[in-house]
Amino acid sequence: MTFHGRSLIGFAHGSIDTTSFQAMNPATGSALDGTFYTASSDDIDRAASLAKAAFATFSTTTPSERAAFLRAVADELEAARPDIVARMPLETALPEGRANGELGRTIGQMRMFADLVEEGSWVDARLETAMPDRAPVPKPDLRYMRIALGPVAVFGASNFPLAFSVAGGDTASAFAAGCPVVAVSHYAHPGVSEIVGSAIQRAVKTCNLPEGTFSMLQGTGQDVGIPLVDHPAIKAVGFTGSRFGGLAIAQRAAARNEPIPVYAEMSSINPIVVRAHALSNRSDALVAGLAGSVSLGVGQFCTNPGLVLLPAGADAESFISRFASAMDASKGGTALHAGIAQAYGEATRNRDEHALVETIASEDGGQVNQLNPWVFRTTAQALLADESLSGEAFGPSTTIVTYADDAELLDILGSLEGQLTMTIQADDADHPMDTAIVRAMQARCGRLIVNGFPTGVEVCSAMVHGGPFPSTTDARSTSVGTAAIERFSRPFCFQDLPQSLLPPAVQDGNPLGIWRLVDGERTRS
Amino acid sequence: MTFHGRSLIGFAHGSIDTTSFQAMNPATGSALDGTFYTASSDDIDRAASLAKAAFATFSTTTPSERAAFLRAVADELEAARPDIVARMPLETALPEGRANGELGRTIGQMRMFADLVEEGSWVDARLETAMPDRAPVPKPDLRYMRIALGPVAVFGASNFPLAFSVAGGDTASAFAAGCPVVAVSHYAHPGVSEIVGSAIQRAVKTCNLPEGTFSMLQGTGQDVGIPLVDHPAIKAVGFTGSRFGGLAIAQRAAARNEPIPVYAEMSSINPIVVRAHALSNRSDALVAGLAGSVSLGVGQFCTNPGLVLLPAGADAESFISRFASAMDASKGGTALHAGIAQAYGEATRNRDEHALVETIASEDGGQVNQLNPWVFRTTAQALLADESLSGEAFGPSTTIVTYADDAELLDILGSLEGQLTMTIQADDADHPMDTAIVRAMQARCGRLIVNGFPTGVEVCSAMVHGGPFPSTTDARSTSVGTAAIERFSRPFCFQDLPQSLLPPAVQDGNPLGIWRLVDGERTRS
Repeated sequence: MTFHGRSLIGFAHGSIDTTSFQAMNPATGSALDGTFYTASSDDIDRAASLAKAAFATFSTTTPSERAAFLRAVADELEAARPDIVARMPLETALPEGRANGELGRTIGQMRMFADLVEEGSWVDARLETAMPDRAPVPKPDLRYMRIALGPVAVFGASNFPLAFSVAGGDTASAFAAGCPVVAVSHYAHPGVSEIVGSAIQRAVKTCNLPEGTFSMLQGTGQDVGIPLVDHPAIKAVGFTGSRFGGLAIAQRAAARNEPIPVYAEMSSINPIVVRAHALSNRSDALVAGLAGSVSLGVGQFCTNPGLVLLPAGADAESFISRFASAMDASKGGTALHAGIAQAYGEATRNRDEHALVETIASEDGGQVNQLNPWVFRTTAQALLADESLSGEAFGPSTTIVTYADDAELLDILGSLEGQLTMTIQADDADHPMDTAIVRAMQARCGRLIVNGFPTGVEVCSAMVHGGPFPSTTDARSTSVGTAAIERFSRPFCFQDLPQSLLPPAVQDGNPLGIWRLVDGERTRS
Repeated sequence: MTFHGRSLIGFAHGSIDTTSFQAMNPATGSALDGTFYTASSDDIDRAASLAKAAFATFSTTTPSERAAFLRAVADELEAARPDIVARMPLETALPEGRANGELGRTIGQMRMFADLVEEGSWVDARLETAMPDRAPVPKPDLRYMRIALGPVAVFGASNFPLAFSVAGGDTASAFAAGCPVVAVSHYAHPGVSEIVGSAIQRAVKTCNLPEGTFSMLQGTGQDVGIPLVDHPAIKAVGFTGSRFGGLAIAQRAAARNEPIPVYAEMSSINPIVVRAHALSNRSDALVAGLAGSVSLGVGQFCTNPGLVLLPAGADAESFISRFASAMDASKGGTALHAGIAQAYGEATRNRDEHALVETIASEDGGQVNQLNPWVFRTTAQALLADESLSGEAFGPSTTIVTYADDAELLDILGSLEGQLTMTIQADDADHPMDTAIVRAMQARCGRLIVNGFPTGVEVCSAMVHGGPFPSTTDARSTSVGTAAIERFSRPFCFQDLPQSLLPPAVQDGNPLGIWRLVDGERTRS
């Protein structure tokens, strides 16, 4: 496989008169083949300007045209499977099985949005019939639907090189809503990005869409991202990554002459609350389930459980000891890139050296960029007093805290920042669960799980992968599932338009056969 | 009528050990009876903390409880009608008929949201059935619905002392979504605010809701607003007012440790594009309609048309001359408060003295705080070169520009900032309208009107009163109509919860009988 290494600017290639870089194999620390070129200022401006030029055409494609494009992207990704599966393990240290699985999920997301757009009801059409004779003033004819927001910048994540990256959920939902996309590749997987971006580029051509429908910028950091966020043609941003990176983008977007929405998914420790009977009745299963969830993907999931709250007592002590053994027996693995290994090293060292933290499982050594499992234990008082102990340590690590009673548990829950998920493990005998505990959890997360583990994010109509700050910058949205289409759209009202100027979704006779609200009644006729 | 003049902090009164102020009668420039007290830091903190404490209870009221509360507010407002209608003209110079009409609209909004909440489908419930035997991993039971965002700060507008103020659309939609409200009275109508706020306070008591469900702060400026926006208990802000005020709040909210959404409706000039045949065929009706729309409410509506684009030629010259006469014949009136009169004086003076602007209608004199009609004319080149000419001059003023051809019209449309509305006047012979013109307008506004005028905002399910920046800070939302409930809610996912812990909206058997998406099928069974 050879790489041209240049950004994809519409149907053209970006500049090579810029800084170049190579992908690193995290498992060896050595550079991989292929030279990649950071997008130039001119590349960034051209990509954004092409997206602006494409907007009027792409945003008014019909549902079937839009669906056909999403399916063409899915088909091109499927055709690129051998190349993707060959390159991705080299750039990310993720196994081939994961590459195949994540590609399936990525293709599935494209097809899911194709189905959603083709069905068409997502536009939330609402019609109010005119009353020309109403006193004191006539009522006009009003027709409401969601329309595309504008060109979207999508920042790829390192931990999902496919499903949350160049052709990931943000790109799929932006396309579905009718928004052109300028994607920014993650520097840790530029080769996979080139393969994936080229697949989308081919689909744009096959479907005869304007070239500005999609561009992809290569780069190694904020040099590319910040000018793109600043560009007046960009109207929204999707980002998955660190709190530092997400906040930098969000603050920049808020400081523009025209502020724009930023959907940054950043950090979450996904607390698990265990109740007394569950702990007593199912401790073996909980030990195994928790160890599996903390270790999954070498701990590099946004929904990794980084805090476990146990009712104090003999059952908790026994659980902790067995869990420590289970984690000691797990092997860890290679980080996605050196930056993650370094940050994990710092975060675990800080806890290990913390006066009020006990290290109950750890492992030394391993390969370059190795992430080893760490388990810490601290007290409720320490957790409440030092917010660094409830910060994210991205990797196969978790911290255990015992709570004396429900009042202390509520204090802890009340002190936590916003989370993607919260989980409660409870048996029938733990019911009726204290409503206050469930409500406190609900107020601080986007997904509440009973008797499960937070890793595993189903792609469907009912998923919410989002939550209060700092798990995301905008709790009003999800980045996974069909509801993600809303983030890149806005409501619009047509008043007294002739039929010929109305989009089919709000025309008389409902030519698309979608669900609509007509004078307050929900109907598809 | 007597006023205690203090803020309403839950069921208690705010401090009197603070700066005091009086309402001014804008028609006389004299102080009105009643001394009002700016909320103290402690008042602000108590109001926000009470709202936080009320959130868990209020946000989980049943649909019928929530609807009963909204109707109780409506009833209390109706009972306060004599007091409101007596005071409002004194504080705002608006006529009694307007006070009665706007109160009717305000009460109607409360009842509309009561109906919406009672019907219940607004929560957008989505259920996905578990598949415990699915390989390679089981599918969990997932249930999605919109839940309340958190306590909301609502800033009252001067130009709608009822419908966009203490009991206005933001308060109604926040209550409907399940969010406690801390309202900030506009200093120009503190007496009306006390009457209205007390009505809501009585409804909270009658319905046995926690006192923190509603508080109202009195004050004269940002001294109250900024600390409230900074308060960690506040999770969203609604604002209607000036660009300066809205941006100050938005920037403050973005700089918080936990940034929060701000829905600020700010400035819009609501351009009207007239096409050749319409101008030729209906110029008398257009002159009368435009003069009526520019003058309505002494020009103090957010949807006031401040820019009219005419095809150059003899018809345009004739139109301009007759429109100038019609505006000369209109009388103007008193501003809502001295600040508006001063800002209007500056804006009209700047245009009047501008080298490239011709003043074609104006009137001198009048009472104190008089707003007189002004009509200006400038060239397309001047409009494109000097963005101050497309800024808002809040009052009974408009600027006319002629366009040489469609290319110049597109240049003008492309240069305009985001607007609440855009309007096109076109006859059959003007069809097929150039799609490019309609698309350019759609990309820059929230509501597109054909053959009407932008003043007049219907309160219904299909309205969008919102638009791209700077008409609002967030184009993803409307402040009028039932869709406004979405701005104060967020999506939430329950995974594998027992029935007893699920809200009725997503329980098995659909106890509320609402429309839901169940495994992809829309059903109310």
